[in-house]
Amino acid sequence: MNKLLFIPGYIILSYLLTSCTTDKPDITTPNIVIIFCDDLGYGDIGTYGAKGYETPNLDKLANNGLRFTDFLSAHGACSASRTALLTGCYANRLNMPQVFSPNSQTGINPDEMTIAELLKQKGYATGIFGKWHLGDLELFLPLQHGFDEYLGIPYSNDMWPVDYDGGPITEESINPGKANYPPLPLVKDNAVLKYLNGLEDQDRLTTRYTERAVSFIEKHKDEPFFLYVPHSMPHVPLGVSDKFRGKSRQGMFGDVIMEIDWSVGEIMKALDENGLVENTLVIFTSDNGPWLNYGNHAGSTGGLKEGKGTSMEGGVREPCIMNWPALIQPGQVSNRLASTIDILPTIADITGTQLPDHKIDGVSILPLLRGDTDAEPRKTFYYYYHNNNLEGVRMGHWKLVFPHAHRSYENVLPGNDGFPGSYSEGKAAYALYDLRRDPGERYDVMEQYPEILAEMEKLAEQARTDIGDELTGREGKNRRPRGSINY
Amino acid sequence: MNKLLFIPGYIILSYLLTSCTTDKPDITTPNIVIIFCDDLGYGDIGTYGAKGYETPNLDKLANNGLRFTDFLSAHGACSASRTALLTGCYANRLNMPQVFSPNSQTGINPDEMTIAELLKQKGYATGIFGKWHLGDLELFLPLQHGFDEYLGIPYSNDMWPVDYDGGPITEESINPGKANYPPLPLVKDNAVLKYLNGLEDQDRLTTRYTERAVSFIEKHKDEPFFLYVPHSMPHVPLGVSDKFRGKSRQGMFGDVIMEIDWSVGEIMKALDENGLVENTLVIFTSDNGPWLNYGNHAGSTGGLKEGKGTSMEGGVREPCIMNWPALIQPGQVSNRLASTIDILPTIADITGTQLPDHKIDGVSILPLLRGDTDAEPRKTFYYYYHNNNLEGVRMGHWKLVFPHAHRSYENVLPGNDGFPGSYSEGKAAYALYDLRRDPGERYDVMEQYPEILAEMEKLAEQARTDIGDELTGREGKNRRPRGSINY
Repeated sequence: MNKLLFIPGYIILSYLLTSCTTDKPDITTPNIVIIFCDDLGYGDIGTYGAKGYETPNLDKLANNGLRFTDFLSAHGACSASRTALLTGCYANRLNMPQVFSPNSQTGINPDEMTIAELLKQKGYATGIFGKWHLGDLELFLPLQHGFDEYLGIPYSNDMWPVDYDGGPITEESINPGKANYPPLPLVKDNAVLKYLNGLEDQDRLTTRYTERAVSFIEKHKDEPFFLYVPHSMPHVPLGVSDKFRGKSRQGMFGDVIMEIDWSVGEIMKALDENGLVENTLVIFTSDNGPWLNYGNHAGSTGGLKEGKGTSMEGGVREPCIMNWPALIQPGQVSNRLASTIDILPTIADITGTQLPDHKIDGVSILPLLRGDTDAEPRKTFYYYYHNNNLEGVRMGHWKLVFPHAHRSYENVLPGNDGFPGSYSEGKAAYALYDLRRDPGERYDVMEQYPEILAEMEKLAEQARTDIGDELTGREGKNRRPRGSINY
Repeated sequence: MNKLLFIPGYIILSYLLTSCTTDKPDITTPNIVIIFCDDLGYGDIGTYGAKGYETPNLDKLANNGLRFTDFLSAHGACSASRTALLTGCYANRLNMPQVFSPNSQTGINPDEMTIAELLKQKGYATGIFGKWHLGDLELFLPLQHGFDEYLGIPYSNDMWPVDYDGGPITEESINPGKANYPPLPLVKDNAVLKYLNGLEDQDRLTTRYTERAVSFIEKHKDEPFFLYVPHSMPHVPLGVSDKFRGKSRQGMFGDVIMEIDWSVGEIMKALDENGLVENTLVIFTSDNGPWLNYGNHAGSTGGLKEGKGTSMEGGVREPCIMNWPALIQPGQVSNRLASTIDILPTIADITGTQLPDHKIDGVSILPLLRGDTDAEPRKTFYYYYHNNNLEGVRMGHWKLVFPHAHRSYENVLPGNDGFPGSYSEGKAAYALYDLRRDPGERYDVMEQYPEILAEMEKLAEQARTDIGDELTGREGKNRRPRGSINY
C-alpha cells in the first residue's frame, strides 16, 4: 500500500501530460458559424490593415486559422450577395435583383437550396440572427428556407420612413422616396416582434443579434448546428451600444467595428465554454465593400478601387477569416481566388451532403482549408453588377473589364456623420489588369498580353452563353426564375 | 535514502511550476534592435494587409507586441530619413539632403549624436549590418558615429555603374548618369571588403546582413547591445536568395519581403536561444514608402496617397512594430501619431541617458509602449521633402498641405520587372485633410474647419521660424550645418 502512496513523480507527470488528449472530433459534422457583415471594406479589420481602432478577437481568429487575401463576395450589393452566399450561385443565375425594397412581391425561389437546407440532410439545427434580405414576404423568409429560428431585420436597416438622423422625411430630405416605407420591422420567426423607429433601436442591434446567437449555441451544444449571423452593421445608419460609443477615437465607424469584434469574441467564448471551438468552422466575411459616399460613416477598401455598388475590387473583395482547429492549421494565409459562392459546396464536401440537382457556380475550397498550397480550386470568377451585364472576368490574378457605366466615388466630396454625398459618373473602359502587380486596377496591360486577353474573352463567352450578358445582347440559357408571390 | 528516491509527485510538480520564474530583467538597459527596411510600403506586411504572400514572423512580432497605424518616417527619401531615425531630428534641421550620391563630400555632422553614441553612455555594444547612407567618406561612416562594427553598403544598392538588369550602361540606358559611379562597395568597418557587380551579389544581401546580425547577438549576449539592421531590400534592384525565389507566387517583390520576414525570424531565434527576447526592444519599420513607378518590383501603400519621394502619406507612413515582452503587453495597437524621430528620445528615456545639448525634434513615446492609451506624446508633425520647403503639417488626425509641385505616380503606367516607368507631374493644392475620415487625402475640408486651419497655420509659422521654409522665403534660425570633408 505504501508503494502506491509514493508513486514516482515521473508517473504522475506523464499521466498529466497525456490526460488532456481526448477523442478526435467527427470532422464530417462540424458546427458551422457564418458571421456576415454589411458594407465592410477590405481594410476594415485589424489584421487587414485597419487604421484607428483594434479588432483583437478577429485578429485572434485569423491568427488561429486561415485568412484569405483574394476572397470575393459574389456581388457588389446586398440581396444579390446574400443570395450567392446561401445558394452557391451567382445571383444573376437566379434572376435575383441587387437589392429588395420592403414588401417586394418577389424573393428567393423555394426551389433553390440554401446552406441551411443542405445541412438539414444531416439534421443540423439552424438559426439566423440578423439581416435576411432575400425577400420579406412570409414565403421568402428564413423559416421557409431551411432555418429553424429567426430574429432580425428582413432587409437593410436604412429602409425606414425617417431620414438618416432619425428625423421625419421632409421635402428637403435626401431620400423622400422612403416616406412610404413601413416602420423597420424586427421579425421573430415569421412575425413582426416590434418596429424600430429610433436610432436608439439601431444602437441595440449588434448586441441583440449576439445575445441570440449565444443562446442558440447554448441550446444546441449537444447536436450539430448551423448558426448564421448577418450583422446589420456597419451599414448606415450606424448604431453602437453605450459600451462601445467613443471607444475607438476613430469616430462612430470604428466604434461599430469594435462592437462587431466584441460580438465575435462573445460567440467564440460561448463556443469555448461549451467545448465546441475545436470542431466548429467559423467563417467571417461581408456582403460587399464600403459605401464610400458616407465618408466618416463608411469603411475603407485598403486601396482597392471604388466600393459598394460596383464590380471593381473595392466593391467585392472582402476580408475572409476561417477558423476550425480540428482541420485548419493556425496562422495560414491563402492568396488563392475564392468566393462566397464556394462556401455551400465546401460545406457539402465536408459533410458529405448532396448538392442540389441544378447547376451551381461554387466549387469546394476544402483543399485550401486543409493547407494544400498547390491547390487552385477556383481559377475564374464572373463580375455581374448592373442588370444582367457581364462587367468583368477573373482568371487567376488577371482581371478583364468590359466597358460599362458605374457609380463612382472618385473626385467628389463624400458625406459626413451619417448623411451621404453624391456619386460621380464613372465610365469603365475595356481593360486588362494584372491584380498581382496592380491591385488598384489602374494600368491597362491589354497590349502587352494578347494571349491572356484571348483566353479571357473565351471565358467571357462561356458566361454569356450560360448566364447571359445584356451588354452584348446575349441571353443566358441556364438562368432560373426568381421566386414570386404568384409562384 | 529510499525516501529521497520516492519524492511525492506533487512536490516535483510544484517545483516544476515555480522553477521557471527568474529574476526580473533590468528594463533600464534593454538590448535594442532596429530593423529598418528600404522603400517598404504601409501595406506590405501581412498584419498591415499585404496581398499575395505571408509574413509569419512579423505577424508574430506584432501579435506579441505593439503595432502602430499612424507612424511616420520623418522624410520621404533615404538619406534624410535615416538621418532623422539616428539623430531624433528632422533632416532639414541638420541641412541633410534627400539622398547622398557615391563619394559625396558631405555627410552627417560629427557634432550630431546618433542613437549609437547615446547608448555608448551606458557602455552598449553597437553594430550596424546593412545600408548606411549618411555619407560614404570615412569621416561619415558608422564607426565614426558610435558604432563598433559595420558591414554593409554605404548607400543605395542601385548606385552602381550597371543598368537595372545588371547589364552595362549604354546610350539607351535609363540612367546613363550612373556610368561614372564606382562599383558597389561592400564595406567592413572602414574599408571596402569587396565590390558587388552582379545581380547575384544583390541576391545574397539579406542573408549576409542577417548572418552578421545573428553573430553579433551571440557575441554580445552577456552585455547590453544596440543592433541596427538597415536592409538594402526591398529597394531595387530586388535580390533574393534561392531559398525564397518563387516562394510567394506574387512575384519577386513578395519573395523579397518573405526573405526579410525570414531574417526577422532568424534574429528573434538568436535572441530566444540566448534568453534575450524578454528584455530586448525590437523595432521594425522602414525609411520611406514604395517606389511605385517600379510596378511589380514596388510595394503597396495600402491605399495611402502617392509613394516614396513625396510628403503624401504614401511617402512616409510606414508599418511599425515594437516588441519588448518585459514592458510591452502583447496584442497592443496604437493609433497615435508617432515618428522615427521619436525613437532616440524614447531610448534615452528608457535608459536614463543624456540627450544632446542641441535641440532635437523627437519626443519620448515611452507612454505608448507602456500601453497608456490616453497619452498623446506627439501632437504635431512637419512634412519637409523638396529642398527646405514646408509642404505639410499634421495636428493629430488633421493634415494641412501647402501648394507645391511633386512627382506623381498617378495616371502613368509604371515599369515592370526591375525597370522604372516615368513620373507624372503632381501639383498639390492648399488643402486640409481629415485623415481619420479620409486617409487617402482626397477631400479638402478647409472651408468646413476654419478654426482648425487657423491653429495649423500657427503651427506652420513656428516651423518656418525654427527650421525655415523656402516656399514662403523664410530662413530657419535653428538649422545646423551638415558635416563636410572640410569641417
